[in-house]
Amino acid sequence: MATRIGIGLLGLGTVGAGVASILNSPEGRHPLIADLELARVAVRDLQRSRPVAIPTDRLTTDPNEVVDDPNVHVVVEVIGGIEPARTLIMRAISAGKSVVTANKAVIARHGEEIAAAAAAAGVYVLIEAAVGGGIPIIEPLKQSLGSNRIERVSGIINGTTNYILSRMADEGADYHAVLKEAQELGYAEADPAADVDGHDAADKIAILAGLAFGGPIERSAVPTTGISNLQGRDVDYATQLGYGVKLLAVAERLESDGDPMGSLPLGVRVQPTLVPKDHPLAGVSGVNNAILVEGDPIGRVMFYGPGAGSGPTASAVVADILNIAGIRQLNSSDGGLDPLLAASSWRSCHLVDSSRIRQRNYVRFNTEDAPGVIGRIGSCFGEQGVSIQSIVQFDACDEGAEIVVITHEVGNGAMQNALQAITSLPGVRSLAAHFGCF
Amino acid sequence: MATRIGIGLLGLGTVGAGVASILNSPEGRHPLIADLELARVAVRDLQRSRPVAIPTDRLTTDPNEVVDDPNVHVVVEVIGGIEPARTLIMRAISAGKSVVTANKAVIARHGEEIAAAAAAAGVYVLIEAAVGGGIPIIEPLKQSLGSNRIERVSGIINGTTNYILSRMADEGADYHAVLKEAQELGYAEADPAADVDGHDAADKIAILAGLAFGGPIERSAVPTTGISNLQGRDVDYATQLGYGVKLLAVAERLESDGDPMGSLPLGVRVQPTLVPKDHPLAGVSGVNNAILVEGDPIGRVMFYGPGAGSGPTASAVVADILNIAGIRQLNSSDGGLDPLLAASSWRSCHLVDSSRIRQRNYVRFNTEDAPGVIGRIGSCFGEQGVSIQSIVQFDACDEGAEIVVITHEVGNGAMQNALQAITSLPGVRSLAAHFGCF
Repeated sequence: MATRIGIGLLGLGTVGAGVASILNSPEGRHPLIADLELARVAVRDLQRSRPVAIPTDRLTTDPNEVVDDPNVHVVVEVIGGIEPARTLIMRAISAGKSVVTANKAVIARHGEEIAAAAAAAGVYVLIEAAVGGGIPIIEPLKQSLGSNRIERVSGIINGTTNYILSRMADEGADYHAVLKEAQELGYAEADPAADVDGHDAADKIAILAGLAFGGPIERSAVPTTGISNLQGRDVDYATQLGYGVKLLAVAERLESDGDPMGSLPLGVRVQPTLVPKDHPLAGVSGVNNAILVEGDPIGRVMFYGPGAGSGPTASAVVADILNIAGIRQLNSSDGGLDPLLAASSWRSCHLVDSSRIRQRNYVRFNTEDAPGVIGRIGSCFGEQGVSIQSIVQFDACDEGAEIVVITHEVGNGAMQNALQAITSLPGVRSLAAHFGCF
Repeated sequence: MATRIGIGLLGLGTVGAGVASILNSPEGRHPLIADLELARVAVRDLQRSRPVAIPTDRLTTDPNEVVDDPNVHVVVEVIGGIEPARTLIMRAISAGKSVVTANKAVIARHGEEIAAAAAAAGVYVLIEAAVGGGIPIIEPLKQSLGSNRIERVSGIINGTTNYILSRMADEGADYHAVLKEAQELGYAEADPAADVDGHDAADKIAILAGLAFGGPIERSAVPTTGISNLQGRDVDYATQLGYGVKLLAVAERLESDGDPMGSLPLGVRVQPTLVPKDHPLAGVSGVNNAILVEGDPIGRVMFYGPGAGSGPTASAVVADILNIAGIRQLNSSDGGLDPLLAASSWRSCHLVDSSRIRQRNYVRFNTEDAPGVIGRIGSCFGEQGVSIQSIVQFDACDEGAEIVVITHEVGNGAMQNALQAITSLPGVRSLAAHFGCF
């Protein structure tokens, strides 16, 4: 019954070495792992010393050799980046081999093309490791939550920014100082843009939204604001008001906008967001990730854990390999695919214009320290139809005053109009910060 | 390609009605749901009015008719209790039909027999709804975490007791008063024993441990302490010391005890446990459940959500049905089973004697309010080899004094010896409370 399944590994970096290490020590893990064999591994440099023992004759510097090797049944892509990863994935699919990848950038941008090719070839492309590191979230969205109408997926899905924000909150530390330390500790890249500017989170929420709502998401249309302009005082004010500041990625179903093709309208975005202290996402600190899924009839479920790292990410990669190995034992007679595991699109979705998204807001104005300014700001919001939950003045020494407003839920369009009107009020110097608020 | 799949429903109570309601409104859910047909439903009373519309000719009061109906391909058991549930499940398996059940009592006690019958018949018995209500935890343990060596599974898996404990902590309320209110609100049964004495949680941890460690667990051997003797002052003292009190179910792998058959030793128990305020389980309040899984290489992942209720539990039941429906599309040529989904045992496990379990402890002594008592208690712990983290005297008016001790990790055997010695010390009146501590 048990036939050896050959694994071809593209890349032997942090995640690749973690995968090899699991395959090399099957004891105490699911017994199917003993049937997996690391048949061929593509590396950049044959001479480099490695933390895992792999016979030299299985190593190659040519990734095509791995994909084409007849002893390789499942191709594991952990190179990262767009190319050559995309081409190698497509080549594996063409060769009739299932693929496991941790590559969120490729899946967020080329997922539709890859899924179509996989469906045509009758193979799986599994991506548990692409979002949330070790946290099982892709599998549950595909298999455990399919009975629900998903309303919203929101999460902390970038560990680097969550580490920075947690330290800023805990120590009252400055963004740039914490970033520098995070880089020294290896929690942030030398070029931190993909993390701190929110692009990594945008890749991941595009993937999650596609699975949760059943249709491909246009990655380039996801409005994205990172944390690089976030100031320590905003974290401080938020804390005083009973909130934490998180870089949240959110995808939610909106009221139908009468799209003639019946396409489902979604609001998707990545932005710094205030989260009330008693909200399940508020307690997620450090490099941890968490994804909250809301739907009918389940209500709210949350998945929490390590969002990155060699071991956790490798755990997710090998779980995907096991899924493929498990289903191979069924000896399907007609090459069909399990539609849950394959997770092909079943609906058309589109992202609405950002102005149509409704949310609560946190805004901070820099103002003159003069009587009447709070009143004028409050009235102006009222005139623009924006309902306010709280408006608080914080003193900021010689820089004038700081007025922080938390609104009730309001359309982004109306909010923009109100902010424009307020910034031209007498005594209001500038709009100094504007985030979302849960 | 899409053939209708007939669902036979045993029971149309809270969960059954939730399942019927999902099947009756497939729009916006996974498209496979449209292929599911509620073919036959067993109810207790044909005349009773119901919240969901089901054609009268599909109802019957004879559950055997549901199981035997040739239009029923998957049998969903949501009657609860041991019999007739067990017999009906076995009858469905004999008829070659896969089963979905929410019945933790049957699975915890007869799971091994049921699994063996299912494997022999080539059918699945899926149980996502049996633990954690809507939270995906069974599926992740079977499919997403199989690459790990699981070290420990711990969780809040009884919503009733967590609701009571949360209210006791928030309001300083008395156990009996909160229980009474919980009963009035429908959060606790008229006979609350299964919940408050921990038996429900013990059923569930036996199931989780069986999946996490790969071998059947002897349910009757799970040491179980409920919350019915818990006093408000313990919750209060715990809060002052920086802990919450939770009814935790824990299953952990222990060092090999040289079992000649290589069986894996496990420590499994249900008991009130102090959880540090910054631990992920500490924030789980009200009727919510959460399960923390620790393993290598994943580290820690947590699954959080509604642990009971019609909608969440039905979400899990229908997810299981979808899994079966998805895999049916593969037209397996030889009637094989996906070993991950089938989750048959692959290892032998045994529960060690409780005295071998090591843990931190919370103990409260009722003592005379006299000098030297704290010192004598501290010294006695030391003489017995029990290392103490903190020892604090709380004043309890005319009743004498209360001395609370939190120990470092120690074997239960040594702890029992120490407690025996301490309770015979002069000035020590009684051991008033003894819980675990994370």
